[in-house]
Amino acid sequence: MASPVTPTPLLKDELDIVIPTIRNLDFLEMWRPFFQPYHLIIVQDGDPSKVIKVPQGFDYELYNRNDINKILGPKASCISFKDSACRCFGYMVSKKKYIFTIDDDCFVAKDPSGEDINALEQHIKNLLSPSTPYFFNTLYDPYREGADFVRGYPFSLREGVPTAVSHGLWLNIPDYDAPTQLVKPRERNTRFVDAVMTIPRGTLFPMCGMNLAFDRELIGPAMYFGLMGDGQPIGRYDDMWAGWCMKVICDHLGLGVKTGLPYIWHSKASNPFVNLKKEYKGIYWQEELIPFFQTTSLPKECTTVQSCYKELSKQVKAKLGKVDDYFNKLADAMLTWIEAWDELNPSTQLQNGK
Amino acid sequence: MASPVTPTPLLKDELDIVIPTIRNLDFLEMWRPFFQPYHLIIVQDGDPSKVIKVPQGFDYELYNRNDINKILGPKASCISFKDSACRCFGYMVSKKKYIFTIDDDCFVAKDPSGEDINALEQHIKNLLSPSTPYFFNTLYDPYREGADFVRGYPFSLREGVPTAVSHGLWLNIPDYDAPTQLVKPRERNTRFVDAVMTIPRGTLFPMCGMNLAFDRELIGPAMYFGLMGDGQPIGRYDDMWAGWCMKVICDHLGLGVKTGLPYIWHSKASNPFVNLKKEYKGIYWQEELIPFFQTTSLPKECTTVQSCYKELSKQVKAKLGKVDDYFNKLADAMLTWIEAWDELNPSTQLQNGK
Repeated sequence: MASPVTPTPLLKDELDIVIPTIRNLDFLEMWRPFFQPYHLIIVQDGDPSKVIKVPQGFDYELYNRNDINKILGPKASCISFKDSACRCFGYMVSKKKYIFTIDDDCFVAKDPSGEDINALEQHIKNLLSPSTPYFFNTLYDPYREGADFVRGYPFSLREGVPTAVSHGLWLNIPDYDAPTQLVKPRERNTRFVDAVMTIPRGTLFPMCGMNLAFDRELIGPAMYFGLMGDGQPIGRYDDMWAGWCMKVICDHLGLGVKTGLPYIWHSKASNPFVNLKKEYKGIYWQEELIPFFQTTSLPKECTTVQSCYKELSKQVKAKLGKVDDYFNKLADAMLTWIEAWDELNPSTQLQNGK
Repeated sequence: MASPVTPTPLLKDELDIVIPTIRNLDFLEMWRPFFQPYHLIIVQDGDPSKVIKVPQGFDYELYNRNDINKILGPKASCISFKDSACRCFGYMVSKKKYIFTIDDDCFVAKDPSGEDINALEQHIKNLLSPSTPYFFNTLYDPYREGADFVRGYPFSLREGVPTAVSHGLWLNIPDYDAPTQLVKPRERNTRFVDAVMTIPRGTLFPMCGMNLAFDRELIGPAMYFGLMGDGQPIGRYDDMWAGWCMKVICDHLGLGVKTGLPYIWHSKASNPFVNLKKEYKGIYWQEELIPFFQTTSLPKECTTVQSCYKELSKQVKAKLGKVDDYFNKLADAMLTWIEAWDELNPSTQLQNGK
């Protein structure tokens, strides 16, 4: 009675690939067999007069800073500049149900048998099957071919909940912070862990934006990557911030978050000295941010992502404003982000707001 | 600056291997290279007049039902009969710091490279390195060679907490309940997931007793396998019960629980029809037990495993007694277990009680 193998839907008209970049997108050549059917949203960071070359045959739209300013007007202030946090502009202008976002220094990884890994296909599998945040399954993803719920797993929880986010991992250069990079400059991730799992309810994790997919309709408005880079006191916390906010909201709304497969090949370690400069305040602040997110709770009345996010912004201001004035600015930007999101996505606002 | 490879301590004078059985222990032949240095505690279930043969060269003590009755007197009522739950008697009579327990239908598994897996060595590694229950690390066990904490992991949490339990997994026959066995009679676990991870704080999981190790000094008195088998309305929930109680207490005391590696080879599926008869009340009851354990909280004053366990017994009686009278009996047996434990382990009682 083994379940039949069903092909993974391509979702080619329901998914956008969002890529933040400052350079020519030669890295797409390696992804061509997997990405070419999809529409790309390229968010060009830095100097808008620079021309970014995209390999032939890809279907894309490209936004530089001038475009962002024109589209959002004064609300463009919530989109970071000179930082890959600008990618979240792509989430906002997308009209699709699903987003996959990837960095331009990420390449196709190989599985232990030497086969190229179709990262996007695995993300789609993760997003289309339920999550199990309320009880841990020791054989990992119970919906995967050849696995199931183990003895002692409550039957009432076996339908799972909708999956909002699929967090993929990295072979080769691990996603370490500057201090760890400095201490272990030669460490490479060579371990292929053949598992996908749900991050349990109430548990936070460090979400990396390098290889990430999500259901825009379920959680899009929470995927704000904050104020980073140019004119801001920190960088490299854009995805972390989004991950903490997103997880608290998913837990509140009963949505699932998965991590594990797929792997991409992360080619290049960024400069640890530069990273240290960007990170050091975050390293200090996160000691207060984590307890804040671990203990925050959202009122029952918050039943949409937008209302949850606005409430979170209020709590950020009330409780983190005293850590640093930066968090007052960030809380305001969170509201601006939601306003901009709703402006560009009037139908989803209506849908979520009813 | 890679950390030097340190050999895993054998702990041969600090660890007992506990095996519940009703048959000759031929399965030990395959484990000889790994188990022979250790002391075995064999708990003979069923007819005490039967002679269990142990392969030559193993150092062991064996207890049958007559021995248990003689040692515990009236308190022997807390030890199950005709059920592998009787194994917990072995935990109680051990004088060692660590316990590894394994079923006699479990054999040496091979890793993907074809090497025999030394399950005990991996459990020892798991127990001797800290756990990280307060924040999820996406590269799994951060203390493992070639891994670390990823970007965004709070530095204040990187020391981790002491590990109390190491839960190993099974290749070949997965640990399914009777309904799943019936629906998927041919399913085999062939997926080797090369990971060890901490079960986050506040998250429950189904602990299987087939391939399990723990620190007896840290958590031993919580490892009671309940009333199962002969004269009881359920079976096959012994390890589950211990797992739920243990996890709630570990969370309260700040101790860690790991799952994942090592794998053993589980050779034989038990009869699903027999299992269904043993399990069906548990399958029904667990829908109330899980919410109970998910919401239970222990008072601050409970600072020893014993005091936590006694408090839990009180709550079981108060809140689960109405589910079925069985839980009143079980709550009493939990207290008897602690009395018996303290009688046999006066020094640990003193140590924990001060």
